[in-house]
Order: sequence, then structure tokens, then C-alpha cells
Amino acid sequence: MLYFLDLMGTAVFAFSGILQARRLQMDGFGVLVLAAVTAIGGGTMRDLVLGVQPVFWVTEPQYLLLIVATCVVSLFLVRASSRHFARKLLLWADAVGLATFTAIGVNKALAVGAPPIVAISMGVLTGVGGGVLRDVLAREVPLVLRTEIYATACIAGGVVLTGTLYWGGNHHIATLACIAVTLLIRLAAIQWHWRLPVFGAGDETKPS
Amino acid sequence: MLYFLDLMGTAVFAFSGILQARRLQMDGFGVLVLAAVTAIGGGTMRDLVLGVQPVFWVTEPQYLLLIVATCVVSLFLVRASSRHFARKLLLWADAVGLATFTAIGVNKALAVGAPPIVAISMGVLTGVGGGVLRDVLAREVPLVLRTEIYATACIAGGVVLTGTLYWGGNHHIATLACIAVTLLIRLAAIQWHWRLPVFGAGDETKPS
Amino acid sequence: MLYFLDLMGTAVFAFSGILQARRLQMDGFGVLVLAAVTAIGGGTMRDLVLGVQPVFWVTEPQYLLLIVATCVVSLFLVRASSRHFARKLLLWADAVGLATFTAIGVNKALAVGAPPIVAISMGVLTGVGGGVLRDVLAREVPLVLRTEIYATACIAGGVVLTGTLYWGGNHHIATLACIAVTLLIRLAAIQWHWRLPVFGAGDETKPS
Repeated sequence: MLYFLDLMGTAVFAFSGILQARRLQMDGFGVLVLAAVTAIGGGTMRDLVLGVQPVFWVTEPQYLLLIVATCVVSLFLVRASSRHFARKLLLWADAVGLATFTAIGVNKALAVGAPPIVAISMGVLTGVGGGVLRDVLAREVPLVLRTEIYATACIAGGVVLTGTLYWGGNHHIATLACIAVTLLIRLAAIQWHWRLPVFGAGDETKPS
Repeated sequence: MLYFLDLMGTAVFAFSGILQARRLQMDGFGVLVLAAVTAIGGGTMRDLVLGVQPVFWVTEPQYLLLIVATCVVSLFLVRASSRHFARKLLLWADAVGLATFTAIGVNKALAVGAPPIVAISMGVLTGVGGGVLRDVLAREVPLVLRTEIYATACIAGGVVLTGTLYWGGNHHIATLACIAVTLLIRLAAIQWHWRLPVFGAGDETKPS
Repeated sequence: MLYFLDLMGTAVFAFSGILQARRLQMDGFGVLVLAAVTAIGGGTMRDLVLGVQPVFWVTEPQYLLLIVATCVVSLFLVRASSRHFARKLLLWADAVGLATFTAIGVNKALAVGAPPIVAISMGVLTGVGGGVLRDVLAREVPLVLRTEIYATACIAGGVVLTGTLYWGGNHHIATLACIAVTLLIRLAAIQWHWRLPVFGAGDETKPS
């Protein structure tokens, strides 16, 4: 279940990289790079910092394969679906990906014995890091650093996960609680702030 | 003593990140990220390259806590103190942080058996790396790459440390000599070039 | 032989960093940093991701020494040689460096047991990564992400190397085939697209 959400998050984040690459009129390779950086960039930095080696996608090639597949599919998807529907779907899928990535990041950090504040940081790094790298490559001030509600959802989820475990909670329940809290805050943010950039971290519009 | 200087350098570098974030009108999370990146970015890259794992702040959460505390305190500090006095104080504190970070970087590299030129590079990376990452996130050509006297001070300090050890000098004396040389060169640079950007690496003004 | 090509590639990539630094009117230290980042940045990211530790240039200081020497020599070289001849020479040398770096990257990945798609990605990362970092520091959208033929040559070379090994080919032959294919595609791209930016990944001109 978590594995399925992880793959979905990877595909969605890859797609947000593809949108950014299209906006910059990049060629095929540029699209691939921006998709990969957005999808696995956060997890890569997390594994490097935690000393988990090699980085997760080196031993699990399905991540790279999924990113390549997403690039191919998106060539058709972008034209097939209506613009408005696609945006809304992506926004929700992005929120699910964010919540899943946060939970995975916090759990991985706790697994190697990191203290709570470090574990929460790893959740944020996993959820937000890819989008930051994408924006740096696209020569923009990372949107995540301007849209508070996106990263704040990660922090809240991380606090819930470490807190639940600290007070003797079950590991599965803590993970689910983390995903639920991150997701709810993010969806609430989307619902209440209609004027916010469409993607949160993964938006292709510039703040004017 | 070195530990105290290290924490002071961390706080000062965090504050220079906070200033940069304020200039870009970032929100609370952006301030936190830029503070953390500036304060621990250089040491993180050093540990990654040297293969010291996990990275230092994963096992020593006081660094992250100090950065959060610096963000909170700076909210008040910025308004409380006079502008001119704060700048001068920061400039001096930044020089002390730079000197300490350089000495720590060189020592860490020598401890894992790196050759002299690599050790000196690690000193520079530790001292200067955080400021470079901060400027990349803020979408600016890193100021350190334009202000020679800043990084040159690191190089000189690194040469002194490795040189002293090479000619049989005591480890404590070599470290102190490195800090003294880096600090003196940097302070001299500040003193003689009044028109240089106020912070050196950590300045929030643009070269016009 | 491969070792000689590797050093040549390092020097050439360092020189492309120096050109970029000159364009931005950086000082001596900035030149050194951009040269180093371009020359060893790709290999550094590869080693980090693969978990090869410490990174290659920590135990082999000749890389850093070569970069410093390249910076010193280039001060004279730039003036001594005719502009047109220098550009053409660099373009060819850059293609050789790219081919060598790709082969080294793929081999290193296969040596630690990475699956084919990961190995090919490591070839691309080694060949292209340094140029991407250089452009990020110079605050430009990485040219590699816009010039398809450059990175596509790496991918083709990587596919040839892993494919040859997969179908029972000799390791030396596979490496030579990879270098030959990458080099030929890149040279053909240079030959047929006279209007492409002069350096491929290492060009100092802006797309207008």
C-alpha cells in the first residue's frame, strides 16, 4: 500500500518536472532530467545525508523506469485530457505524493536512529527537496520557499509521526496518521486558498 | 572552545541566511530553509565528499535546534538593535565563524587521511559552501565567487594548518594558527576595503 | 590509456568552467571554483549516489592539482592561440572528454552491481553533471538540458557498453565501443549543426 503510494508520488512529481521543462521549451533529454530530479531528488538527498548507501534508486531500477514511462505517457496525456480537469487531478495527486514521501522520509530517518528534529527534517527534505532542485535547475527561486502551507504540511505530518511513536504508538498507525495529517492540511490549503499557485511546490506559473 | 566557536559560527551563518530570505520576502519556512542551508550546507557537503556518515548534524541535533532558535531570536534582534551596529557586529562574527569552519574542515579531512590539497579544499568548502548554496537558492551568482578576499582567507588558513602539521607542529597550535590567520586576513580585508559588500560571503546587497 | 583520456577530459572540462567564469568576470577564486565544479562535479555526484567513498578526488589529489595547473596555464593559453583555432580544438577535446567520462561512469556503476538503466544514468551523470553544476552556479538554465545531441551521445554510449557486456562481450571492447559511439555521435552533431552553441555543454554563449 505504502509502496503503491510511493510509486504514484514518484510519477506525479515526475510529471510536475515535465511541466516545468515544457515551460522552458527544453528538449527530450531536458524533460527526462527535470522529471527525474523532481521525482527522486528529495529522496536522494535524504539517503546521502543519512548515509544510506547506495541511494535507493540504484538498487531499485523501477523508479527510473517509472520516470521514463511517465515521460512517454505524458506526451499523450497532456493533449488527451481537458486542461482544467488535469490540473485539479494533479493537485490532489501531488498532495498524496507529498504526504507519502514525508512519511517515508521520517520513517527512514528513525530507522537509522536519527533524533526527532532530524527525522522531521528528513520528512520535509524528502517531500520538498525534489521540487527545490527542479526550480534551481529552472533558474527560479524555489516556490516551496514562498508557499508556506506546502512545507508546513510536511512538518506537521513529521511531528505527528515522531510524536505518536514517542508516546508508544504503533508504527503502522503512526505512519497512517502522518500521511492523513499531511494530506488533510495540504488539501485544506488547496481548498481555502484558491488563488495560490496551482501546484503548490509543483506549479509552473510564476509569482507575478 | 572550538565547539563554542563552531556553534557561534553556525548561528551567525544562519543569520546571514535569514537576511537573504527576508530580502526575497520569503515566508517562515523559506527563512528556516535558507538559515539551515547557509549554516550547515558547507559542512554537509564536506562530510558527504569525505565519506563521513551520517552527516554531522544527523547525530548532533543541537545544530538544527540552534538554527531554529536563531530564526526565532532574529525576529526580535533585527528590530531591537541599531542597524549600523548590527552590521558591524555581524561582519566580525561572520569572520570568526569563517575561521572556525575552515579549521574544522581541514582537521576533519586530515583525520580521514586526505592529502594536503584536499584538506585545504575541505576547509574552503566548509567555510564557503553554505554561502554558495544560499546564493544559488536565492537565484544569485554566489558572492563568494566574486569577493576574492573571503575565500582567500580560508585558503591561507588551510595552508597554515597543513603546513604546521607537516613540519611537525602540535595539532592544537596548528588549529589556533589556522583560525588566527584566516581571521586576521578577513578582518584586514574588512578594514581596508570599506566599499566591499558588508558581509563578504553573507551580504544581502547586490553588486550594482 | 583510459587514465590519460580521463585526465585530458578533466583539463578540458576545467577550461570550459574557466571560460564561463571569465564571462561572469569572476576573480581568481571564482575561476578556480567553476573550473573544479565543471571538471569533477559529475564524477563527485556519481560517487555519492553509488556510495563509493570517499569521492575519487579525495584519495587521488592529482585531479585537484591538474585543475589548479589548468587555471594557471589557461591564463597564457587564452591569449597565445588564435580564437578560432582554440574554439575548434576545445570542441573536439570536449567531445573526447565527454566520451571518456561516460565510459568511466558506466563502468564504475556496473562495478558496484548497479542494473543497466542505473549504469547508463551514471554515465550521463558523469559526462553531463559537471556542466550542469557550472551553469547553475553561473545562474543559467543548464545548456545541456537544451542541446539534445550532447546528452543523447552519452545515453547511446552507455547503452552500447551495457549491451555489449550483456551479450557476453569483452570488458575492454565494450569500453572502447562506448567511447567510440559517444565520440562519433558528438562529432557528427558538431559537424552537421554548425549553428549549435560552440561548446555543446561547455559553451559560453547564451541562446538568444
